[in-house]
Amino acid sequence: MNGAQSLVQTFVDADIDVCFANPGTSEMHFVAALDSVGGMRCVLGLFEGVVTGAADGYARMAEKPAVTLLHLGPGFGNGFANLHNARKAQTGMINVVGEHATYHLEHDAPLTADIEGIAGPVSDWMRYSRSSDDIAADGAAAVAAASTHPGQIATLILPANTAWGDASGPAPMPERAATPRVPGERIDEIAKILKSGEPTALILAGNVVREESLAVASQICEATGASMFGSTSHARLQRGAGRAPMQPLPFAVDLAVPILKDFKNLILVGAKPPVAFFAYPGKPSTLWPEDCELHRLSEHDEDGVLALEDLRTAVNATSVSPILHASVLPDMPGDETLSVDNVSRVIANHLPENVIVAEEAITSGRAMHHMMVGAAQHDWLQICGGAIGDGIPLAIGAAVACPDRKVLALQADGSGMYTIQGLWTQARENLDITTIVFSNRAYQILKGELKNVGVDSPAQSTIDMLELNRPDIDWVKIAQGQGVEAARATTVTELVREMKRGLASEGPYLIEAVM
Amino acid sequence: MNGAQSLVQTFVDADIDVCFANPGTSEMHFVAALDSVGGMRCVLGLFEGVVTGAADGYARMAEKPAVTLLHLGPGFGNGFANLHNARKAQTGMINVVGEHATYHLEHDAPLTADIEGIAGPVSDWMRYSRSSDDIAADGAAAVAAASTHPGQIATLILPANTAWGDASGPAPMPERAATPRVPGERIDEIAKILKSGEPTALILAGNVVREESLAVASQICEATGASMFGSTSHARLQRGAGRAPMQPLPFAVDLAVPILKDFKNLILVGAKPPVAFFAYPGKPSTLWPEDCELHRLSEHDEDGVLALEDLRTAVNATSVSPILHASVLPDMPGDETLSVDNVSRVIANHLPENVIVAEEAITSGRAMHHMMVGAAQHDWLQICGGAIGDGIPLAIGAAVACPDRKVLALQADGSGMYTIQGLWTQARENLDITTIVFSNRAYQILKGELKNVGVDSPAQSTIDMLELNRPDIDWVKIAQGQGVEAARATTVTELVREMKRGLASEGPYLIEAVM
Repeated sequence: MNGAQSLVQTFVDADIDVCFANPGTSEMHFVAALDSVGGMRCVLGLFEGVVTGAADGYARMAEKPAVTLLHLGPGFGNGFANLHNARKAQTGMINVVGEHATYHLEHDAPLTADIEGIAGPVSDWMRYSRSSDDIAADGAAAVAAASTHPGQIATLILPANTAWGDASGPAPMPERAATPRVPGERIDEIAKILKSGEPTALILAGNVVREESLAVASQICEATGASMFGSTSHARLQRGAGRAPMQPLPFAVDLAVPILKDFKNLILVGAKPPVAFFAYPGKPSTLWPEDCELHRLSEHDEDGVLALEDLRTAVNATSVSPILHASVLPDMPGDETLSVDNVSRVIANHLPENVIVAEEAITSGRAMHHMMVGAAQHDWLQICGGAIGDGIPLAIGAAVACPDRKVLALQADGSGMYTIQGLWTQARENLDITTIVFSNRAYQILKGELKNVGVDSPAQSTIDMLELNRPDIDWVKIAQGQGVEAARATTVTELVREMKRGLASEGPYLIEAVM
Repeated sequence: MNGAQSLVQTFVDADIDVCFANPGTSEMHFVAALDSVGGMRCVLGLFEGVVTGAADGYARMAEKPAVTLLHLGPGFGNGFANLHNARKAQTGMINVVGEHATYHLEHDAPLTADIEGIAGPVSDWMRYSRSSDDIAADGAAAVAAASTHPGQIATLILPANTAWGDASGPAPMPERAATPRVPGERIDEIAKILKSGEPTALILAGNVVREESLAVASQICEATGASMFGSTSHARLQRGAGRAPMQPLPFAVDLAVPILKDFKNLILVGAKPPVAFFAYPGKPSTLWPEDCELHRLSEHDEDGVLALEDLRTAVNATSVSPILHASVLPDMPGDETLSVDNVSRVIANHLPENVIVAEEAITSGRAMHHMMVGAAQHDWLQICGGAIGDGIPLAIGAAVACPDRKVLALQADGSGMYTIQGLWTQARENLDITTIVFSNRAYQILKGELKNVGVDSPAQSTIDMLELNRPDIDWVKIAQGQGVEAARATTVTELVREMKRGLASEGPYLIEAVM
C-alpha cells in the first residue's frame, strides 16, 4: 500500500466517498489509488473552479464533506474563488492539493508555487504532509477538521513522493469535537430581551434556516412579538408553502436600513451583524440603527438549532403555533416577452415539489423571494461569498449529492460565464439539472452600482465594461457544444414549454431566457 | 480629481495605456476614471484568468506592462494561475485590485478576503494604498516595479475610498533602475571556459532568445565549438528561416538527459539550471550529468543581451558568421485524417510571415519545433509556468499589442477549456486571431504521465479523469456561441482550407482540428 492508497482508504472508511477532481501529473498516484482502493466516486471538472464549487454544493446537501483533488498552487488558485464562497457558506471540504516531490522543490520547476501562501487565506485547517507514513493520519485529521460544525475548509498538501511512498495502512478517525451548546445563562438573557416588549428581531444564518428551526423561530416570534429576518444570502434555505417564512435582508443598503430602523434589539442566531455588502460614499456600512443593541444567541460554530429550542422553552413558546406560509402562487403572466418579474412568476408556478434550487441569478434572484415563499417546498442554495461563478458548480454538487431530487439552476449570464465549463460535467455525469440562464446581456447589478458610487451618466467605454453584448452570447450553442441539450425562450409560453421539457428530462437541460 | 483619476492619469502619463479588466462595485470609480481621464484602452474579459493571461501576452509583445483591473481577493484568485504563468515568464504587469473601503473592512462583508495573502505568492512588488493622496505615487511606483528588467508582477491594492477620495493630481515617475551589466571578470571567466575545448553548451532563456541575441550566441558557438540550447518553454522565442536556431530542451526527462549527457560545462544565460518539470519515481530531478559544471553568464535580471555581445568580443567571434537556418519546410502530407504530425506540417507550410504564435498545444506543441525552425519568421509565445489556460488569453494580449500582425493560436483542447470565455473577448474586440484547437479529446499528456509514475494498466475510472470524451466537446458551437466564426477540420485538405480562411479574415476564427 502506498501513501495515496492509505489516504483514499482513510477517506472511504470515514464515509467520505465523493471526489471532485482535476488532476495533473503530481496527483497521478492519488488517481490510481481511487481505482485500487475503490469506494470513492470521482467526478471530473474541466476547471478547478468547477471542482471546488461542486464540492461546496455537494456538502450543503449531503451534509458531509467531499474531497477535491487540485493540481499544485495554480490548481488551487483556480479553485480559490469558489473556496472563498464555500468558506463564507461555512461548508466543510477537504482539499487534497498535489505538490512536487519534496526533494524536487529546491529546483523551482515551472509549477513550483507557494501553496501554503495561497491556501492560507481560504483554509480553516491546513497541513503539509511530508511522509507517506503520516499521510493517512493527516487525512483523518483533515476529515475531522472539515466536519467540525458547521463545516470548515481543510487543505491537505500532498507531495508526490508522499503519495507514492510506502505506507502501513489507513488511519482511524480522531474523535470529532462535539458542537458547543449555548450556555443556559445566555439563553436566559436573550429570553429576557425578547420578553421586554422592546421591538426586537431575530437574524438567522447557518443551519437554522431549515424547516424545523425556522418553525421554532416562528414560535418564539409569535410568543414574544419579535420579528425574524435572515442574512442576505444563505448556504441552504428551506422555504415554500407549509414552512415558516423568513425574510432575507435586502442586498441594497437603501432597502435594508428602513427594514431594521425601528428595532431596539437584534438577536443574532449564527449570523454576523448585518452589514452592507459594499461601502458606498455617504452610505452606512452597518444596517442597524444607532440606538439598536446587538445580542448574540449563538456563534456560527455553536449549536444554533438547539439554542433556538432552548430559547423557545425559555419564552414559553413550546405550544405556540408557528406561522407556516400558505400555498400561494403569484399570478401567471400572459404570453409576453420575458422580464425578471414574469420569469419569476413562471418559475414559482412550475417549481417541482422538493426541488433543489441553485441560485446565482444575482440581480434577478433577489427579486424572487416573495414569489417563492408560498411555492412548492424547496432547498434554495445561494452564493455566499459574492465571488461570481458559483451557480453552475453548486448545481453539479447538489445533483451528485441528491440523485433522486430535481435540481433547478437559476443562473445570471455574467456569472455563468465564469465557470461555463461546468456544463460539460453535467453532461458527463448525466446530472438531472435544469438551468435557466437569465440572459440580460449585462453585469446588470453593476449598472446599479455605478449609480450607487455616484456615476450618473457613464460614457460608452464605461458601459462597455458592464454589458455582455457585442456580441450577444448564444447560450444554446455553448451548452450544446458541451453536450447539454438546450433551447432558447423569448416569451412566457416558450419558457413554460422549455421549463416543463427540462424538468421532465432525466439529464441536464439549459434554457436561455432572453430578457 | 479623485484618487482613481490621479492613478489613471499617472499610468497614461507613463505610457501605460491598456487595461484588461473585469471590474465590480469596488472598482467602479476606476472604471469611471478611464472615461474622464482618457487615453487608456480598456478590454473586458469575462473571467479574470482571461484578464491576467491577456496582460501577459500583451507585455510580451508590447514590451511594456498592461494594467489589470481585478475585483477584490476572489477576482485576484481567478487571475492567479495566469499570474503564476506571467511571473514564470518574467512578464511585467500592474494589477490594480479593488478592495472594500478601508473603514468597511472591519465588518467582514461577504467579499472581504485577505488580498495580500493571496497576492503575495505571485507578486514581486505589492502595496496597499490607504490614501487618495498617495495613490498616484503608489501607481508610479507600481509602474517602475513592473518595468524593472525583465519584468515584474506589481500588485496595487486600491480600497474604494482611496479611489473616490480627493487627490491633488498625477504623480511623476520615479527614476527607473538601470538593468545591471554583467561585470567584465565574469565575461572573461566564461570566455575561458568556452576556449578550454571542453564540451560546453549555452542554455538560453529570457529575452536572449530573440533574433539578434540568438545570432550572437550562434557566433560564440561557431567560434568556440560550443552548443546552444534553450529552456523548455519561452515567453517569446524568435524563430524561423534566416534566424539562428536554438533547440529547447525537451519536456520529457528521458529525452532531455541524453542531450546533455556529454557536456562538461553548461553556461546559463538568463536561464535557471535545467531541471525536470516534475519528479518521477526513479528519475532524476536535474537534467545535467554529475561531472558537468554549471556556470552563470547572466542572472535573469541582468542584461543578458549585452553580456552575450561582450562574450562574443571576449571569444573573438565578432566577425564570425552565425549559423542562420535555411528556409526548409516539411513535406506536405497527403489528404489524410489529422494527426499531430500532419497538422504540424500544415501549420509550418502555411505560417504567414511575421506571425505571432500563441502556443498552448502541450503534447502536440512540443513536437513542432523541428518543423517550425525553417518556416516563415515568427514570434512563438509559450506557457511558462505550466498552469494550463494561458493560450487563448495570450493570443488576446498579443493581438491587442500588435494590431497589424496576424496571431495564430495553437491550442490544446483540455487547456483551452480553462479560459474558454476568452473567445468572447476576441469577438468583442474583433481581434485578428486564428485559433487551431488540437481536439484530441483528452488530457493527452497525462496519459503519458500516468505511465511515467508507474501506472501501466489504468482502470476505466482512472482513464475517465484523463479523457474529455463522453461527451465530445464541440468547439465550433462553443466558439460560435461567443460570436467567433468557426469550422471543423477532420482531414488535411479541410485544415488547409480553414487555415487559409482564418488567416485571410481580419477577425477571430477558430478551427477545431479533430485528431
